[in-house]
Parts: sequence; C-alpha cells; structure tokens
Amino acid sequence: MTKHVKTAITPTRQQDYPEWYQQVVKASDMAERSPVRGCMIIKPWGYALWENIQHELDDMFKAAGVKNAYFPLFIPLNFLEKEAEHVEGFAKECAVVTHHRLEKGPDGGLVPGGKLTEPLVVRPTSETIIGDAFSKWIGSYRDLPLLINQWANVVRWEMRTRIFLRTSEFLWQEGHTAHATTEEAEARTAMMLEVYARMAEQYLAMPVIKGSKTAAERFPGAVDTQCIEAMMQDRKALQAGTSHFLGQNFARASNIRFQNQQEQETYAWTTSWGVSTRLIGGVIMTHGDDDGLILPPRVAPAQIVLLPIAHKQQEQAKVMDFTDALAEELSHIRYHHRPLRVEVDKRDIGGARGWEWIKKGVPLRLEIGPRDIANDAVFVGRRDKPLKEKFSMSRRQFIDEVTTLLDNIQTNLLDHARAFQTAHTHTMDNQEEFYAYFTPANTEKPEIHGGFALAHWCGSGTCEARIKEDLTVTIRCIPFDQEPQPGKCICCGASSSRRVVFAKAY
Amino acid sequence: MTKHVKTAITPTRQQDYPEWYQQVVKASDMAERSPVRGCMIIKPWGYALWENIQHELDDMFKAAGVKNAYFPLFIPLNFLEKEAEHVEGFAKECAVVTHHRLEKGPDGGLVPGGKLTEPLVVRPTSETIIGDAFSKWIGSYRDLPLLINQWANVVRWEMRTRIFLRTSEFLWQEGHTAHATTEEAEARTAMMLEVYARMAEQYLAMPVIKGSKTAAERFPGAVDTQCIEAMMQDRKALQAGTSHFLGQNFARASNIRFQNQQEQETYAWTTSWGVSTRLIGGVIMTHGDDDGLILPPRVAPAQIVLLPIAHKQQEQAKVMDFTDALAEELSHIRYHHRPLRVEVDKRDIGGARGWEWIKKGVPLRLEIGPRDIANDAVFVGRRDKPLKEKFSMSRRQFIDEVTTLLDNIQTNLLDHARAFQTAHTHTMDNQEEFYAYFTPANTEKPEIHGGFALAHWCGSGTCEARIKEDLTVTIRCIPFDQEPQPGKCICCGASSSRRVVFAKAY
Repeated sequence: MTKHVKTAITPTRQQDYPEWYQQVVKASDMAERSPVRGCMIIKPWGYALWENIQHELDDMFKAAGVKNAYFPLFIPLNFLEKEAEHVEGFAKECAVVTHHRLEKGPDGGLVPGGKLTEPLVVRPTSETIIGDAFSKWIGSYRDLPLLINQWANVVRWEMRTRIFLRTSEFLWQEGHTAHATTEEAEARTAMMLEVYARMAEQYLAMPVIKGSKTAAERFPGAVDTQCIEAMMQDRKALQAGTSHFLGQNFARASNIRFQNQQEQETYAWTTSWGVSTRLIGGVIMTHGDDDGLILPPRVAPAQIVLLPIAHKQQEQAKVMDFTDALAEELSHIRYHHRPLRVEVDKRDIGGARGWEWIKKGVPLRLEIGPRDIANDAVFVGRRDKPLKEKFSMSRRQFIDEVTTLLDNIQTNLLDHARAFQTAHTHTMDNQEEFYAYFTPANTEKPEIHGGFALAHWCGSGTCEARIKEDLTVTIRCIPFDQEPQPGKCICCGASSSRRVVFAKAY
Repeated sequence: MTKHVKTAITPTRQQDYPEWYQQVVKASDMAERSPVRGCMIIKPWGYALWENIQHELDDMFKAAGVKNAYFPLFIPLNFLEKEAEHVEGFAKECAVVTHHRLEKGPDGGLVPGGKLTEPLVVRPTSETIIGDAFSKWIGSYRDLPLLINQWANVVRWEMRTRIFLRTSEFLWQEGHTAHATTEEAEARTAMMLEVYARMAEQYLAMPVIKGSKTAAERFPGAVDTQCIEAMMQDRKALQAGTSHFLGQNFARASNIRFQNQQEQETYAWTTSWGVSTRLIGGVIMTHGDDDGLILPPRVAPAQIVLLPIAHKQQEQAKVMDFTDALAEELSHIRYHHRPLRVEVDKRDIGGARGWEWIKKGVPLRLEIGPRDIANDAVFVGRRDKPLKEKFSMSRRQFIDEVTTLLDNIQTNLLDHARAFQTAHTHTMDNQEEFYAYFTPANTEKPEIHGGFALAHWCGSGTCEARIKEDLTVTIRCIPFDQEPQPGKCICCGASSSRRVVFAKAY
C-alpha cells in the first residue's frame, strides 16, 4: 500500500494524465482558453517562457546565417493552390477572409460587407507567399543561399484543440531557405534539425530522437520531412520540431529560378523548418510532477524566487533589506550569457505563496527569515528535488555557486527525462507483443500506453495504415541514429533493412 | 544657379517627396509591396530596425512593470460591438473571417466552406478581447494595477496605403492596463507617452511634440488620447505613438469590475497605448537624404560596415585578415548595453558596394586598403556628413573612440531634426497668413507645405472641421508644454485660452 501524499495538482498524472496537464497549465498560470474557439490566451508566465525560447533560438538562427523578415498574414487563394499536395493538406483547416468591412444588416446588427473578389486565407504556413517573394529576389547563383526566418502567428482550424499542443492559432517561427544545389539544401535541412535538437536537449532538457517521417506523415509538398520526437510522461510521442527538404517542388510552384555558374536557368532547391508554442506543452509534459510545473533553468521565466519571511513587525525592515540586497547582487550574475532572472515575492499570504512558485516550477526557491539573516544564510529548495529536501547555505556560498546549482538542475532534468525515455523504449520483433504493448487493457495501468517501440517495417504504406487503424499507433520517424540491420516487418513479415519508431502521439 | 549634384536617389526630396520616400524604401532594401492588397513584406534590413526598436521598448516596458502576453488574433463580432464608438470607428476597415475551410466549388476550384455561425474579425486593436480577459482576471484591488503588453500584427483594411505609414496589416505593440483609481490610470497614460517620447527622441533621434488629441481625433471610445507628433522633411506631421486614457468606458463594455478597499464593487479605469512599424517610416522621413537612408546609431541594424579594398591578388589575405581581426575586436565593444553591430562586406563589385551601404544608411563606413594597413589606420566615412568628407584614424584611436563617434552622430541627427522642426514651426495669429501658410500655390516650393502652425483655437468642432475641409489641415495636438495664454480662435475669432498645433499630416 502506498502512502497517501497530498499533491498540489489534482488529479495526479497517474489518475488522469490529460486532466493533470490542463490543471498544471492552470495552476502555473501559463495560459487559458479564450472565448474564440480553439484559440488560447498566453499569460505572462507562459509568454515569458516562449520569449526565452525565442531569444535562444533566434541567436542560433543568426549564428547559422539566417535573417529575420516578415511576410503578409493573408495568402491569396490562388497562391495556396499552386502546389497541389500542399493545398490538399491544408484546405480542411483554413480560416478564410471573405469581406473587408462590417455594415448594418437588415435587423440593425453588423454583418460582413465589402466582399473580396478573391478570398484570402489566413496563413497556415507561408511557403507559397514567401516563395513568391523569393522568385522576385533571386536572379542568379550570387543571390543564393537565401536564408530567411519569420516569427509569426499562424492559423489552422483544428476541430479538437488542447492548449499549447494543438490550437487554432499558435505562435511559431518558420524558416525558409533557397539554395543552388540539392546537396546544400539537404545540408541546411539537417543543420536546422540539429538546431532544434540542441534547443530541445540543451535548453528544454527534453531528449529527442532525430529522424525522417514516412511518406504518409510528410509535410504536404515536401520531399523529406525530418523531425525531432520527444517522449512525454504518458509515454506518448510529441513531434517537437520539423525541418523539410522541399526539393524543387515549391520552386516550381512559385517559379523560383536562378542562373547558375554555367549561365543556365534552373529551379532553386528550398527548405522550410519550424517550431511553435507547442514546445511549451512539451516542457510541461516532460518535467512536470504532481505539484505542478518544473522548469529547466535555461529557459525559466525566473530561475530564482526570494521569499522573505518576517512574522514580527520589527523584523520587517531587516528581512526586506537583506532580500532586496541579495536580489540586486544576484541580478548582476550572468548565467549562460544572460543576467539571472530573479523574482522577489513580498506578499504576506502565508503558505500559499511558496506553493504558488512551486506550481510555477521555479528552479530555486530561497526562504529568508530572521534566523537565516543572523547566520548570513539562505534556505534553499530545489524544484527538481522532493519539496521537503531543503538545505541551508551561506549567502556567500549561494552567490558563488548559484550558476553551478542551476546547471546541476538543468542536467538533472535532462538525465531524468532521458532515463524515462530509455526505460520506455523497447526493441520489438514479435507482432503479438507489439499489439499487447500498445493495447491499454493489456497494460498494468490502462491509462498509460506503452511507449516507443523500435520495430522493423517493410516500408509499405499499407502496413503503416493497418497499424494506425488497429492501434492508433503511428511511425514517429525513421531514426537517423542506427546501423542498417536486416529483419522482418512487424506487420506483414516482409524483409526490412531498418527499425522505425512506433508510438501513440499528440 | 545651383550646381548639379548626382544623387543616389531619384527623384530628390525637393523634386517629389512621396516618390523619394518610396525610392529610399526600395534602395535601402527595407520593405516592398506584397501581392496581397495593402500588405507589405518587411525585408531583413527593415525588420532588423524593427527588432532593435522592439528590444529597446520592451526593456522600457519591463522597467515600467509591464508584462508581455498574447491574445487571440480573432475577435468575435459581438465583442467588438460592446463599445459603440469603438465599433463605429473600426467597422469600415475590418477583415472578416466567415469560413473555416476550403472546399471544391461547382467549377472544380476551391471556394470557402464551413460557414462560421458568428463571423470573426481580424483584430484591428484588442481592447475588447483583452478587456474580456481582464474581467476574469480581476476580482479585487489586490489584482491591480494589471499591466499587460502584446507584440502582435493587426489589420485595418485601408483603401490608400503607403509602405510603413499606412498598411492593411502592420506590426505593433499594444499595452493594456487596468487600475483602481482614475488618477493612477491617468498617470499611467502619461508615463507610457513619456516612454514613447523617449524612444522617439533618444533612440530614433526624432523630436516630438507631446499633447492631447481633440475630441474629433480621439481613439474611438477613449476619454483622452495623448500623442507624440513628429515633423517629417516635407513639413507634414507624423503621429508616432498614442496613449489612451479610456476612463471606465471599456471597463463597462467588458465588465471589468473589482472590489475596492472599502469592499465596494466598482469598474476599473483602463488605458491602452501603442506604437507600430510606422516608426520606421518616421525614421526614413526624418533623417533620409537624397542619397538614401540615414540611420540613428542606437537602432541601426549595423552601426559600422567594414569595406576591405584589395585590388591586387597578393594583398587579398593581408587586407582580409586585418578586416576580420578589426571586426572581431569591434564586436566585443558594447554600445548602450548591447554589442556593437558590425557588418563586413568583402564582395568585389566595385563602387556599387560603398553606395549600397550609403543607401542603407549605416552610420560609419570604414574603408580598409593596403595603405591604411601600412599605417595601422582606417578611412572613415560618417553617414551624417557630406559623403566626400572622409577622414583617416589610427586603428587604435578608432576602437577607443567608436562609441563616442556614434553618440556624436546620434546627437547630431537629433539636433539637426530639432532645428528643422523649430525652423518650420510658426506662431500665427492672422487667419489670412494661416491660410497662405497652408496653401501650396502660395509657397515658394508648392510641393512642400508650411509646417506646424501654433495658433489659437476656440475648442469648437465646427472650426476644426472648417479648417480641415478648407486646407486638409488638422489639429495634431493640444500641446502639454505651454503656458495658458489668451487669444482669438484662428478660425472664428472667439476667445481661446491656448494654442494648438495645426499641420497637414500622414
């Protein structure tokens, strides 16, 4: 019999994982649903996390030679139609602008007026409108490579939405590049996937598997879609970022041509790649526990919160002064090229105050009372450790070691998540075992599914579709990091040369 | 007879100011028109300027206690209708989403499908949707003040557009705050206007007049609209930023109530304030000359460009090494809390290279040839000085003095613009003189209008409308910085207690 432990989040992950997720989003005050169907409001705590992700990614993009720009929100319908697979892929989820004003209707209320001659689609992604610009910007091989990124909102009208993970509007970046050779475009596709993997692992402490999508799971219009796949604590996969090699498909659709060194006109090779606010959902589901969020220090909106405690009136001034001085000193320390982010919470609201910061996932909580001050010390709680496991440190030592402490938490979170992923990744060669693994009723905890299965696949879409229909399990990717290995397809038994990653997914 | 001087931009400002503006935008590669009516593409050079404006503003907002968040792009029609003046003000320029997918039409092409039960308006501004969130977030005076900002795109369907100045989609920030008292909300309105004035003057080197709008020029639904007004080189006014005191109007419309310290339920007092990519147009028109853009160092995408010159093959390596080492050394210098932004252009394209950076407005151009290297020197061109006025400096001295040089350029640009504004601002008491001032045919240069006229106004909307109709001149603001002074209305002769700023405007 397990001991009953009171948790800050109800239900726990074990009791109801999807509902636990919603409750953590709420308890951490990251975001909420809006009155607009499927659209979310990203609240300051969630937005600050996104800003930190943006800053780090933006630095990496710029180091990779990419420049930011901005393209129109609206895409003329005929642009979208230029690439057949592309429009097919997005037609079912497009917000369409048909009018450009409001006017008095017959019953006195406002109705749409000023019908547009051609409807405009709110961008679900921008390959076609950016491709049109590229076709004008590129004339010769000297204009290549062209490396552009855009930070923007996009809209995909989803029927079933979940905050951060699948929303009708979301924030993202979309990189778009054009190259003179197929090799260079392929190298760029891989390079940007590496950037995403680095963001996921080094910043979000979220281990990922890199690989290519199968034809069925590719971005509409792409030749190759590469992805990073992470494992959430319910053992489902989260596609956390994609990088597409588009070949000459979009160059043909948008007429992106250039004169090469041999003075021949040829189509450019293009790529596109993106990550979105979905990453925030990934952070929550990778690290959160039954007391709320746990944030990796490198991207946490605040890495440290100072909680002054002064029960007696005469202690007030001394405690607050000590706290303010410490906050000031900490804010001058740099952690990974940025100033430490420190919060001071002086509210006199009792125990609720500490719990609030626990639920918000701040890596280090410092309690500062008269006794600590007498010892010139602070009382430290690490969010990655059990809540009661707090320790005292001298003020000086804390200041000297704070960046080491944060690095330690960062590493600990990654190690923990990696161990979890490894524990729930299984090599499988037996079809019966494979089906049992992904059938909830057959597992000890029916609400938690199997995990990742590394199994052989013959390459046929039929087998892929069969497994998807039987188990709602998809091929997450054909992982890069494996040696060729002969085997038999887990579905049909035909010969196969490599394993793929199967999982249920968000 | 004036000497004919060849300029990089045709036409010159004197010849055709509006066309000069378009040509500078083009020559500096900042932005271009898109295939979507009224929407622009912001190219890397323009977007980098916007990013620098964003970074500085964002720091100022955060220092003022404001937190960033993100709200939906779409606003349900019934939200917009909640504040009568507000919807009236924006109804004529709303992009309306009526469908949520595309489907095959009768002739095989795609047509809008999945009609929405309630149309959604693409946000022209977000008072109503953010107000709805505030009504849920605010319960008691302890939740106040609530200080939120959003960086976002907005859409206002303009019939006549001009790049950066008036576009159907533009980028901006919109701050929204709620307060427990009218005094506090008024103070916040003024505080944020000060932030904008500081941005304009200290960063964009664009002198502004601060004041309140007249009732006719107010933001729809506001009690008081405060603004900063700048003067462009065609002597027209540019409204560069606004800060609105909304009283309880939007709180009533959105039901933003709180329990005050006396435990009474009352409506909050709110404010909103914004600046947009229009500021970029302001920078171009304040500082640009007939050779292109001139950028204030504090916001320039690059403050320095290094132009290595090696005509002989054997000089190549030495010149490039010297250049790279200098670029590296410069990039470690901090200018106003940020690393210096340095570009190196090694292209071998002759004189076109230097002209490109002149047109792009980079504050300092450094030519580096074998002779300079022999003297351990650099040859410096300042963009705020005549192009031929270049000078040699030792490498060491340049490094030691670069931030002083940049500050000097920054100050010089502001002084220059301020002198221009002063020269074209006239106190006027005679109606005939006033009309002549604003009538192009009566001026020496018919394409350039008068400037700012400080004239008395009785306060009547009739007089304001008359002048607008007669001269297309509007009251830009009732300036804060003036002593009460009795006089007679420039239009009707009735008594008036203060002067206002009249001008033609963008």
